[in-house]
Amino acid sequence: MMVATLLVFIMHLGFATLEAGLTRAKNTVNILFKNTIIPAMGLLTYAFIGFNLMYPGADFAGSVFGFSGFGLSLPEGWDSSNYNAGYTYFTDFIFQAMFAATAATIVSGAVAERIKLGPFIFFSLIYVGICYPIVGMWKWGGGFLNTMETPFYDFAGSTIVHSVGGWAALVGAFLLGPRLGKYTPTGMKAIPGHNLPMATIGVFLLWFGWFGFNGGSVLTADPGTVSKVFVTTAIAGAAGAFGALVSSYFKFKTYDITMVLNGILAGLVSITAGADKMGVGEAALIGLIGGTFVVFAVVLFDKIKIDDPVGAISVHLVCGIWGTLAVGLFGDLAGMPQIIAQLKGIAIVGAFCFVTSWLIFFTLKRTIGIRVDEKEEREGLDINEHSMQAYPDFASKD
Amino acid sequence: MMVATLLVFIMHLGFATLEAGLTRAKNTVNILFKNTIIPAMGLLTYAFIGFNLMYPGADFAGSVFGFSGFGLSLPEGWDSSNYNAGYTYFTDFIFQAMFAATAATIVSGAVAERIKLGPFIFFSLIYVGICYPIVGMWKWGGGFLNTMETPFYDFAGSTIVHSVGGWAALVGAFLLGPRLGKYTPTGMKAIPGHNLPMATIGVFLLWFGWFGFNGGSVLTADPGTVSKVFVTTAIAGAAGAFGALVSSYFKFKTYDITMVLNGILAGLVSITAGADKMGVGEAALIGLIGGTFVVFAVVLFDKIKIDDPVGAISVHLVCGIWGTLAVGLFGDLAGMPQIIAQLKGIAIVGAFCFVTSWLIFFTLKRTIGIRVDEKEEREGLDINEHSMQAYPDFASKD
Amino acid sequence: MMVATLLVFIMHLGFATLEAGLTRAKNTVNILFKNTIIPAMGLLTYAFIGFNLMYPGADFAGSVFGFSGFGLSLPEGWDSSNYNAGYTYFTDFIFQAMFAATAATIVSGAVAERIKLGPFIFFSLIYVGICYPIVGMWKWGGGFLNTMETPFYDFAGSTIVHSVGGWAALVGAFLLGPRLGKYTPTGMKAIPGHNLPMATIGVFLLWFGWFGFNGGSVLTADPGTVSKVFVTTAIAGAAGAFGALVSSYFKFKTYDITMVLNGILAGLVSITAGADKMGVGEAALIGLIGGTFVVFAVVLFDKIKIDDPVGAISVHLVCGIWGTLAVGLFGDLAGMPQIIAQLKGIAIVGAFCFVTSWLIFFTLKRTIGIRVDEKEEREGLDINEHSMQAYPDFASKD
Repeated sequence: MMVATLLVFIMHLGFATLEAGLTRAKNTVNILFKNTIIPAMGLLTYAFIGFNLMYPGADFAGSVFGFSGFGLSLPEGWDSSNYNAGYTYFTDFIFQAMFAATAATIVSGAVAERIKLGPFIFFSLIYVGICYPIVGMWKWGGGFLNTMETPFYDFAGSTIVHSVGGWAALVGAFLLGPRLGKYTPTGMKAIPGHNLPMATIGVFLLWFGWFGFNGGSVLTADPGTVSKVFVTTAIAGAAGAFGALVSSYFKFKTYDITMVLNGILAGLVSITAGADKMGVGEAALIGLIGGTFVVFAVVLFDKIKIDDPVGAISVHLVCGIWGTLAVGLFGDLAGMPQIIAQLKGIAIVGAFCFVTSWLIFFTLKRTIGIRVDEKEEREGLDINEHSMQAYPDFASKD
Repeated sequence: MMVATLLVFIMHLGFATLEAGLTRAKNTVNILFKNTIIPAMGLLTYAFIGFNLMYPGADFAGSVFGFSGFGLSLPEGWDSSNYNAGYTYFTDFIFQAMFAATAATIVSGAVAERIKLGPFIFFSLIYVGICYPIVGMWKWGGGFLNTMETPFYDFAGSTIVHSVGGWAALVGAFLLGPRLGKYTPTGMKAIPGHNLPMATIGVFLLWFGWFGFNGGSVLTADPGTVSKVFVTTAIAGAAGAFGALVSSYFKFKTYDITMVLNGILAGLVSITAGADKMGVGEAALIGLIGGTFVVFAVVLFDKIKIDDPVGAISVHLVCGIWGTLAVGLFGDLAGMPQIIAQLKGIAIVGAFCFVTSWLIFFTLKRTIGIRVDEKEEREGLDINEHSMQAYPDFASKD
Repeated sequence: MMVATLLVFIMHLGFATLEAGLTRAKNTVNILFKNTIIPAMGLLTYAFIGFNLMYPGADFAGSVFGFSGFGLSLPEGWDSSNYNAGYTYFTDFIFQAMFAATAATIVSGAVAERIKLGPFIFFSLIYVGICYPIVGMWKWGGGFLNTMETPFYDFAGSTIVHSVGGWAALVGAFLLGPRLGKYTPTGMKAIPGHNLPMATIGVFLLWFGWFGFNGGSVLTADPGTVSKVFVTTAIAGAAGAFGALVSSYFKFKTYDITMVLNGILAGLVSITAGADKMGVGEAALIGLIGGTFVVFAVVLFDKIKIDDPVGAISVHLVCGIWGTLAVGLFGDLAGMPQIIAQLKGIAIVGAFCFVTSWLIFFTLKRTIGIRVDEKEEREGLDINEHSMQAYPDFASKD
């Protein structure tokens, strides 16, 4: 569990390098800043409020909302065993805390290169500190999604983590509008990422961390289950790469590394909901479909002019939904009752996240504004918001 | 064991960054693509066929070749204990699967900057899916190298993994010929790597992963043996760095970071065959000699005009042989019978790998061709095979 | 413990990438070289002499100095249990060995971009091989700091590791003098780091490794204590980021990523002395103050013209002292006797390190010299000491 915690921690570096690699050099400091400060603030917020919203425990106040007070201390008359056995209170907190900031980090990618820093941090604090743990409680804190007749199943968070981030990413990217010059009257203009080795490092670190994300979600050190989850996680990521390779080759007639990288993530998000319930063949199929979906989703979002610089919506929302649904279609839980339970969970979580993230982003847009001005966007956020450059020693092409 | 699996996984990122860092910017996407898709395909191939070739278990058909059917499922009437105790079937698979793609990744470095993508992936699939597990079975699957009177000893794969890759690297580099402009009538022209920090990251990640590679090969969690293996692995890598530092300084009168990096890898490859049988002083000596060998091997291969952009043949083949032989010369097993057993193993595996890799590469060369055309090589593989650049925002020197 | 060892190992990559990222491209190879060769030589030196100076065990010769002979082998009649239980002799060695080189790596950052390679390596060998283990013995090897009436407390090395490096960093930076062009008659000129993504990678890897540094220092696998240490470590780093964000924003009116990165490290160094004795709120407070201190310390050292390219003195010395003192102010040990014990430890270790590092650096300065000549400093150390460039394919701005 503690090793798993560390692996999830390093995913934040994966997100940082992936997002920075897939965007332009002139916005790199801004992206690094966001992806450093969000996990840091997420940890503090989750300790102060989030954990007690997500796992209200003895002070459990209902099936939709509960809260056990501010700050982090083992509540009186209540111990780890109230909700799970085999690890300590602090282990539970730190593992969950490492997850928490992920939701905001996913959004970060979709709104990159044009969002104002202050409003984004404000959004992240509320979304990570309040919205994410409320949704999490519905399933993992013993809430109503877990106590339905056929409980909604989401092993490690295709919906509870990835879709939660994905919905807000969709809302944010939509309300911001596309980057300048992305969709022109003469068609869509690709804006290539400035550092593909860094993006590749990001995806490998994410895959590495995913073994902790999924493996740790077994919540015991039972080697049988953990090792099976490792295999399904590895196979789904690999199959996602293969699916994206094949479909992007047929679509674009080229070997697109960014599609393969997103295909890996797509496979991983897709297996996350059912990593412990799938056989090896099923994991491969789920990953393969996820890797294919992501290629077409990227094309689709560009068609409807939702500009997502890193493909976060395609990876985390589309494949988060797919993976959640797949629990009803394949593996140990497959069957109509489970399909319905999965659809219920997807819809309820989706509605809540869509509405709350809309409320936050829309309020910010109408008050302090969420988008940098045109001059700043053209020159880059690094010079304007941070007074520094990511690579001051190198000559740029422009 | 499962932690070790993850460490071996991250070695693939190490190989990707090392190879990309030691080659030119114009071929970086190609290298990232290869090093992403090979582990992914390797995982799938190994699940589908390789694992059952390497560990045929109850369906064991002989001492040279065995096969227990396609796909991954615990065969009836057969469990992990048939070949080893202390870990699950899935743990065994995933640990071995992470190893498997290494053989092809080693080749990738030696053939970089001029091989066609399609043929290389085709080669990798066959070599990782069939050739590697057949050799692996000879020793680790209970085959004839393991049942000789004095069994061939190769703790974690100086021969079974590194030389297997190294022989194919030699064949591939030879059949491809050198990169344009490398060997001119007026002498050898160094083609420097474009990103030495990335190469350094690669070597540290490989060293990090090597602790899993060697530590996990203990195949138990016995802390006494695992901790000793950690120490020999650390010391051999450090001594390899020192050996390469000293010999490259005397040879080139400069502090060459790439030699030190390859010296670390040389030390690690050298200790891999006997990491559990050596004392600390012996590990230092073996690493030191490995680090020295690699400097002279790099010079030698350049002299005979075998162009190996990253020094993979020197590191993995030369030091793989040295490390395997060292098991007969030093440590708990030292003695003439072991020397002979080691030489037998080296020769038989070498012959098999040389012949099979020659057959595959030569057939590909005579049919679809294995080398990109001159224009593509000059402009870079990234633009021509992938329609993208690794660093589109930066001005290049050319 | 063994996992912790690996995490500490990867900190060396963190130091390498952080230092390289925060300095100029023309000195990158030099920095990579130092940060590769120092851990390698540190491992060898520590095996040959350091470990037996730090943990003299049965051959314990006094409370200030002890030595149990050269080389690494379990001394007769003496086993791990003489100084601690729960892990093997080799585990103990390798965990401590991974720490050892840290002291020199800290110095490396402060003297970067102008120190000669040879003298620096010479300094590192003596400091890591002799000075560090002597100080370490005073506390961790059972020496006089541990046997005072109220023992000096330093859980994982705010003083014993970080200040030991920090004092030598201060001495080295002072004796070398500032980089050319840093302090001009018209004021201080910022010399920005050439690769901020790499610096960010470095800090995340250091944070990642710190969990091993602090977690492993529990020296048992007791999940209660280890998990609490994980939480205090995570929270202090996050609070350090927040402290640096706020204070640097008020000071410079910009969102400075380098300050946030150093703030994280400041928080981590600050919690290191008392990671197991603090509650969550106390950890947050200690980290927050550390993150604030680092911003003002960086400004202060620039004011007195001590040029520290990466802020190593501010992070490791200032926060090392602060964190050590904090053990007397907060948490389970708080109280006047502990404050006095902490002050004693800080002063005695400081005096010893200041004097010994002065002696070594000053002797080197007066004999072979420690600073490269002006031409070499202007052109970069890479071309002059290593005959290579870190990024030969890219055009620079100069």
